[in-house]
Amino acid sequence: MEQPHAPVAAEAGAGAKAAGDAYTIRPLEISDLSKGFCELLAQLSPSPPLSEDAFRARFAELAALGADHLVLVAEEAATGRLAAAGAVLVERKFIRRCGLVGHLEDVVVDAAARGRGLGERLVRRLVEHARGRGCYKVILNCTTELRGFYAKCGFEEKNVQMGLYF
Amino acid sequence: MEQPHAPVAAEAGAGAKAAGDAYTIRPLEISDLSKGFCELLAQLSPSPPLSEDAFRARFAELAALGADHLVLVAEEAATGRLAAAGAVLVERKFIRRCGLVGHLEDVVVDAAARGRGLGERLVRRLVEHARGRGCYKVILNCTTELRGFYAKCGFEEKNVQMGLYF
Repeated sequence: MEQPHAPVAAEAGAGAKAAGDAYTIRPLEISDLSKGFCELLAQLSPSPPLSEDAFRARFAELAALGADHLVLVAEEAATGRLAAAGAVLVERKFIRRCGLVGHLEDVVVDAAARGRGLGERLVRRLVEHARGRGCYKVILNCTTELRGFYAKCGFEEKNVQMGLYF
Repeated sequence: MEQPHAPVAAEAGAGAKAAGDAYTIRPLEISDLSKGFCELLAQLSPSPPLSEDAFRARFAELAALGADHLVLVAEEAATGRLAAAGAVLVERKFIRRCGLVGHLEDVVVDAAARGRGLGERLVRRLVEHARGRGCYKVILNCTTELRGFYAKCGFEEKNVQMGLYF
């Protein structure tokens, strides 16, 4: 009664935290296989569970690429589970004075964690990595439905993506 | 007089050769810097001439990626100059059982060599490399004007490409 709006304010605070400190965005780690990494990726594309050997082998191959390949994940503090993931691959070209291009790949936010700005935070971190690595641009492919999301992240529509499946 | 059609047959043979053996498609070599490689790339995107040191350095970086990065060029037998170039970069993913994806990049055919099927031959060679490497698909980005060309090469339109320029 004395502070009728306090609970509301506290909820607002918790909401801000949910969009901020409730998630830690960091590079992928070996232990993430048991934190729901494959289940998260399965929301994006067919991703059957990986054996630990297969995961470790691919992890090592990507680690060998150094700053030219980065996978970021968002871990939820409350549960220790992964709530988002995304990757950026740096391509070395000859054009534009041996320019570098960042390819944004496999960005996914857990269905239960959407609408809190987590995807945008993750994308911006991946973009900053590419910028720091010296890329002159970052590109990605997405469905027409996701154009608005990526526009909010600073991207603009450029071309069409074509694919050939084996 | 005894073989009135021989010259015609020879011309037809030469024509077939123009679309076939007149160009040798092969991996990029160090000596290609002096065969018009940068001038060719400049028809695609701003590509100022590279110093030999810069070219060699990038060449070595890409060679270190082994089969995960291939640049093919088409050398014209008659002139020893490059008439086309293109690259495929293999991306290692976690999705799709640690699947591999080929990214087709920087495909260009010299303006004077267009209309002879050379671009399609080059693209199909790059696609075959990706298939042989175990990729489950090859993707590329292009302008709407080039959709027809890539459809002829076996590609279909999938998504939109977004870009963020620094």
